[in-house]
Amino acid sequence: MMYINDETIERFLKEDVSYIDLTTLVMGIGNEKGQICFTTREDMVLSGVEEVLRIFGKLGIKTIQSLPSGTIIKSGETFIIAEGLASNLHMAWKVSLNILEYCCGIATRTKRLVDKARSVNPKISIVSTRKSFPGTKELVIKSIIAGGAFPHRLGLSETILIFKQHVNFLGDFEGLSQIIGQIKINACEKKIIVEVENETEAMLIAGTDIDGLQFDKVPISDLRSLVEKVRHINPQLTLIAAGGINESNIEGYASTDVDAIATSSVYFGKPADIKVTIDKY
Amino acid sequence: MMYINDETIERFLKEDVSYIDLTTLVMGIGNEKGQICFTTREDMVLSGVEEVLRIFGKLGIKTIQSLPSGTIIKSGETFIIAEGLASNLHMAWKVSLNILEYCCGIATRTKRLVDKARSVNPKISIVSTRKSFPGTKELVIKSIIAGGAFPHRLGLSETILIFKQHVNFLGDFEGLSQIIGQIKINACEKKIIVEVENETEAMLIAGTDIDGLQFDKVPISDLRSLVEKVRHINPQLTLIAAGGINESNIEGYASTDVDAIATSSVYFGKPADIKVTIDKY
Amino acid sequence: MMYINDETIERFLKEDVSYIDLTTLVMGIGNEKGQICFTTREDMVLSGVEEVLRIFGKLGIKTIQSLPSGTIIKSGETFIIAEGLASNLHMAWKVSLNILEYCCGIATRTKRLVDKARSVNPKISIVSTRKSFPGTKELVIKSIIAGGAFPHRLGLSETILIFKQHVNFLGDFEGLSQIIGQIKINACEKKIIVEVENETEAMLIAGTDIDGLQFDKVPISDLRSLVEKVRHINPQLTLIAAGGINESNIEGYASTDVDAIATSSVYFGKPADIKVTIDKY
Amino acid sequence: MMYINDETIERFLKEDVSYIDLTTLVMGIGNEKGQICFTTREDMVLSGVEEVLRIFGKLGIKTIQSLPSGTIIKSGETFIIAEGLASNLHMAWKVSLNILEYCCGIATRTKRLVDKARSVNPKISIVSTRKSFPGTKELVIKSIIAGGAFPHRLGLSETILIFKQHVNFLGDFEGLSQIIGQIKINACEKKIIVEVENETEAMLIAGTDIDGLQFDKVPISDLRSLVEKVRHINPQLTLIAAGGINESNIEGYASTDVDAIATSSVYFGKPADIKVTIDKY
Amino acid sequence: MMYINDETIERFLKEDVSYIDLTTLVMGIGNEKGQICFTTREDMVLSGVEEVLRIFGKLGIKTIQSLPSGTIIKSGETFIIAEGLASNLHMAWKVSLNILEYCCGIATRTKRLVDKARSVNPKISIVSTRKSFPGTKELVIKSIIAGGAFPHRLGLSETILIFKQHVNFLGDFEGLSQIIGQIKINACEKKIIVEVENETEAMLIAGTDIDGLQFDKVPISDLRSLVEKVRHINPQLTLIAAGGINESNIEGYASTDVDAIATSSVYFGKPADIKVTIDKY
Amino acid sequence: MMYINDETIERFLKEDVSYIDLTTLVMGIGNEKGQICFTTREDMVLSGVEEVLRIFGKLGIKTIQSLPSGTIIKSGETFIIAEGLASNLHMAWKVSLNILEYCCGIATRTKRLVDKARSVNPKISIVSTRKSFPGTKELVIKSIIAGGAFPHRLGLSETILIFKQHVNFLGDFEGLSQIIGQIKINACEKKIIVEVENETEAMLIAGTDIDGLQFDKVPISDLRSLVEKVRHINPQLTLIAAGGINESNIEGYASTDVDAIATSSVYFGKPADIKVTIDKY
Repeated sequence: MMYINDETIERFLKEDVSYIDLTTLVMGIGNEKGQICFTTREDMVLSGVEEVLRIFGKLGIKTIQSLPSGTIIKSGETFIIAEGLASNLHMAWKVSLNILEYCCGIATRTKRLVDKARSVNPKISIVSTRKSFPGTKELVIKSIIAGGAFPHRLGLSETILIFKQHVNFLGDFEGLSQIIGQIKINACEKKIIVEVENETEAMLIAGTDIDGLQFDKVPISDLRSLVEKVRHINPQLTLIAAGGINESNIEGYASTDVDAIATSSVYFGKPADIKVTIDKY
Repeated sequence: MMYINDETIERFLKEDVSYIDLTTLVMGIGNEKGQICFTTREDMVLSGVEEVLRIFGKLGIKTIQSLPSGTIIKSGETFIIAEGLASNLHMAWKVSLNILEYCCGIATRTKRLVDKARSVNPKISIVSTRKSFPGTKELVIKSIIAGGAFPHRLGLSETILIFKQHVNFLGDFEGLSQIIGQIKINACEKKIIVEVENETEAMLIAGTDIDGLQFDKVPISDLRSLVEKVRHINPQLTLIAAGGINESNIEGYASTDVDAIATSSVYFGKPADIKVTIDKY
Repeated sequence: MMYINDETIERFLKEDVSYIDLTTLVMGIGNEKGQICFTTREDMVLSGVEEVLRIFGKLGIKTIQSLPSGTIIKSGETFIIAEGLASNLHMAWKVSLNILEYCCGIATRTKRLVDKARSVNPKISIVSTRKSFPGTKELVIKSIIAGGAFPHRLGLSETILIFKQHVNFLGDFEGLSQIIGQIKINACEKKIIVEVENETEAMLIAGTDIDGLQFDKVPISDLRSLVEKVRHINPQLTLIAAGGINESNIEGYASTDVDAIATSSVYFGKPADIKVTIDKY
Repeated sequence: MMYINDETIERFLKEDVSYIDLTTLVMGIGNEKGQICFTTREDMVLSGVEEVLRIFGKLGIKTIQSLPSGTIIKSGETFIIAEGLASNLHMAWKVSLNILEYCCGIATRTKRLVDKARSVNPKISIVSTRKSFPGTKELVIKSIIAGGAFPHRLGLSETILIFKQHVNFLGDFEGLSQIIGQIKINACEKKIIVEVENETEAMLIAGTDIDGLQFDKVPISDLRSLVEKVRHINPQLTLIAAGGINESNIEGYASTDVDAIATSSVYFGKPADIKVTIDKY
Repeated sequence: MMYINDETIERFLKEDVSYIDLTTLVMGIGNEKGQICFTTREDMVLSGVEEVLRIFGKLGIKTIQSLPSGTIIKSGETFIIAEGLASNLHMAWKVSLNILEYCCGIATRTKRLVDKARSVNPKISIVSTRKSFPGTKELVIKSIIAGGAFPHRLGLSETILIFKQHVNFLGDFEGLSQIIGQIKINACEKKIIVEVENETEAMLIAGTDIDGLQFDKVPISDLRSLVEKVRHINPQLTLIAAGGINESNIEGYASTDVDAIATSSVYFGKPADIKVTIDKY
Repeated sequence: MMYINDETIERFLKEDVSYIDLTTLVMGIGNEKGQICFTTREDMVLSGVEEVLRIFGKLGIKTIQSLPSGTIIKSGETFIIAEGLASNLHMAWKVSLNILEYCCGIATRTKRLVDKARSVNPKISIVSTRKSFPGTKELVIKSIIAGGAFPHRLGLSETILIFKQHVNFLGDFEGLSQIIGQIKINACEKKIIVEVENETEAMLIAGTDIDGLQFDKVPISDLRSLVEKVRHINPQLTLIAAGGINESNIEGYASTDVDAIATSSVYFGKPADIKVTIDKY
């Protein structure tokens, strides 16, 4: 579903193993045959499995069994078993574990957010922001999709979201409202969305020919009535809540009747806890 | 102090801006001149600044003032001011913010850990593990150094740390103890360190010609007496505590008289909170 | 406005000059100082200039004067003058000329299309398709923007365009119409557009909650009435004409009252004709 | 016969699919099994097939049948059939089509030129110039070879072609004629060829110890007599016609008795017309 | 045991074959089937075989038999036999031969050094320095390991070796001796080694808490007594001899009772002599 | 004169410094200002200087003075002086020294060969083969040019050299002689050269319409008379001696009246001896 370039997969491996596993080399055990098993220590949503298997393939490690990204597993389940030479298993171990722990962590947090939000508002969409750690975008996008969310904006080049930092070049929101017609002509295939921070801005922009509003850090209680007011002006508007939304408050935001919630909170947080054994075979 | 390849810097930028900032393009504001300012919303240790300035350089954005990575700043301080065209400022904005928020977050958490540990044991070394998000290693290593820690192992190729996953190929720790002499000959320039999980393993290995022990997930109270016991056998041993050590328990671990504490906890956790303004100039 | 990675710029250079200009080497003229001038032999819109200047910079060639991409120039105008060593000027010559001739060709054809279409329908948007020669995307997108068009879809990851090749997995358009509601929930921030080839398909889909229709290869006369019919069903629909539209027929398509015309025709065709002189200085 | 690096193949794919096919994702059809078929809508020479199959391989798409580059096929022939998941087929579709349409277009135009020229002069060689779109060199060279031509110069580093832009550093052609002896010593393994634009230059250079002449933009009628004159001076000379030669005039140029015709015209022009179906399987 | 990235393998191939083997192309023999055999003309230790097989794999060449890196073979032994098309065999030939001749040369010289040194001092370790030709590090490290040596330092980032060029920033060795305690705290997991050039420096540093000394260019006779003296001060010290050590003098150095000998001499010297036949099959 | 990609320059640096110079870090001297000087310990021809200065530039090291590649310098001459921070100087030191020692070694050996050969035969050309260490081609080609030689063949794609390994697909040299006419048509812009090993092969091929012969490992005395014989058949033939030619026998080969001598011997051999000092400034 997502293809990550070989160059990237190899970069991950080389970050950890520039040349060799010196430990197996000096111990003289590199040519022994062994088996590696990955077992979760907590309930989780899998992600990153395919990338680990590609690392295995490069190192001549044969996968015996595995479950695909997106699978929901229980604490104690073993989800990858593979066999190879000790030197190769040790080269693969930590980078594989890191991919899995970070990716599964994100997928699992995403699933929790999606489930919480949908329990309140079954039609809501959870979308994840551009605030990921530089260097990790492919893995995080794969993981939020595994967890049931969609990407908000993958970058700047194909979607239109007008921030105050754009508006400042036009003076103010009044200035913006005057050119929305031209923006819609220029970009008739995209929705034009404006980020607003308060009712004044929201009402001003909702009265134009805009396609959507993103509410930044508006408290839940204010947002609820604000959604009602702007929908009253234009029921077609796409409405997105963003800014500081996480597991502790997502149900509240979901109940405001916005169409989507944009969140960064799934990207950081503790990696999943996965046990790795390597045994002589 | 660390040089990150141009290719990496450009990869970070391209993750977010594959081609253009469509928003400035369709708004027609791309050629306006503007100023971008980064201001912290919390006390923190700077990291990632040099990489942001290199992105600015590539985009023709002129840095007016900046503070270097490693600087400790207070909430409200502005630490980067730069000027350029609106199209370029908008292309630089988010990737720069992401670099800074993740890096400063790591540097700041690291500094807190180091300070806490040193307050108890001034000679202790805080070292950060290999458990970083694949794709981020250069940024995280730069950041933990900015925060006062050192890298534990940067990879598998130049240090020797013997895990149970290695020992299994020799049968058991008894098997390991028999080849430590040969390992030391093979790697006379490195310290040979073995990870142990309990007193039995620790005492067995401490009795060999090993250079150090890493204690994995040994509770603080057990560790304190264990350190004393192994030092009694061999006072020269390098002793490292690892496994689940973070801000909440690092002082306890620092008080066990180990030489170093290895931790992954600085790598994840909330990014620093930084405000970015872009204004017409 | 667009940043092309250094790696790409260097790849262009290396395609032509893997090591040296053997001719200047065996002639022994490499260290002579010279001047290179680029002069157009036809009226055109400039594109690719910034990339040529970056190649010059890498080769120690000093730009004396240049006009930016997007500038409209007349036959006979000199738009780049630069100075350097003969060996470097000869290394830079052909790759620079190739960049300019292909890019200016695209920009100029684009401008002609845009002008023709706007002369008939001033609010129409000309968008360029994904049908570019693999390996050239950054240059072609830069060039169509220089010529006044916008990108249609830069890729598959951030826009939604449903083709028959998608619909086949649902059976038929009827099957599609049944899940449009769910698609809109999943992607509330994007416009959902469907490609249709005839009136039956168009009317069926226009009756759903879709955001837009792309008409593939519908003859101008049919399209005119079809646009009227679907707008009658839903006046908010974004309507795009695509398939075989070029300089010879764009005015007709522009007169059908669609919102946008998607075209590939600007990508191929004769490169612009530019004269290069290199003289001893 | 030509190996294109994996990195390049993946770059082509990523140009179009940075992460996912969002359309299949939001439609929920990604895991359906399907079949993709490529069928030509015109007679043509195949090129680029092997690269498409490598993209398929990366995406887990299984090729059922295919014809190799260089095969001549008739309108209506299906030349690739493959099977895979809908998400992967849609990721592969457009980039594969683009590779094929551009490459087959070049191969087919090349074959036409070669056939026309050989019908007049069976011993003539058609060689393609360095004037290709930056970023496409491997694909175009593969394609002109598939069409029966050879590369003229692949770059600057291994062949010697002296242009007026080189001669200017020696004053004039007279100056050049004085150092040809030294150039031949320096490069005894290569033919030394000089580009000339008129009879004066041609006759002056033909009288030296040069290996060949390239005639730039000399009209056919002039060229015929000029070839005779220079062959009279030195029958061993390699003679090449270049500049503005294409399908409309190549027979005339071929009849001038030059050894080779260098052309860029095959590189641009309409891509081949290929139909792609994707069906549920 | 060592994984070299695909990108590197392909870079090696492209250094020699940017596009095609022009010779097979113009001879028209590219599609003939053939067999390639590599046979040594001298006794040697194999290295680089796996990389050659990966090049074969990329070019569709099927390996019939091969011996792994590290194998000791006699003059006249054939160690790789493979089959493929003439065009591919010719593309693979020279780059494969170059990899093998340089790598086997290094492995073989390494084995000779190791054998000579061990014949005098069975517990000595031979380590190879950082003085390799830029661009070759992976191949040379693989080769010295195949020959029985270990890497001295793979780079600057994970080991500590203090040179006079470092000491100069502290004034002199006296200045260094004062901060060794702090260095050991900062880097408790690594051995701290100092390079010294004479007895004065050696004795001064040996009296500190240092972990090892590297003797640079100390004559064998002086070194013998110096080793004794510093061991008298601290018998735990790791002692390394370096500087100008090669096949002609390594036995002398091995007899000085140092723990390790660091040498660069294996990196340069004549490549191994290997015969390649390619025959029609 | 040759441009090496930034990516390559950075790869050289990263081979040695993946992240940091740990030694300066743990010593706490990284921010001290210092000066680095490169001084030769032997007469030599410079090469690689420009690449070293680019590494300096990346690390913020300011070049104070330097001599360009190609300069002939005497033992004791300082040819680069630069200033920067201790951490950066130490990162730059060894990779710079390695580039210089290997490149200057090649350039100097090349100059010696050229001088020796020209002393006997002033019109002879010395060309260097494709037998370089994979990964080093740009540096070695730059260096042999600095030393006064030219590249023989830079790769397989632009020159034609027919080996026995090609001929085998045609049966024998007789088979080759029958298709030389067609080969010349296919490649009229290149010289067609055949490698021969003895008089029989030489005389057979010299009688065809071939452009040149390369004599492989023919002893000097045999070669002298053979050259005379083939020149008698065709005085225009380009004649090249190759195989085992080095400083010890090049004068003999130069005296055989061949046009060129192809050699690999300059690529290996001891690197030049250069002293580096780094001092506090």
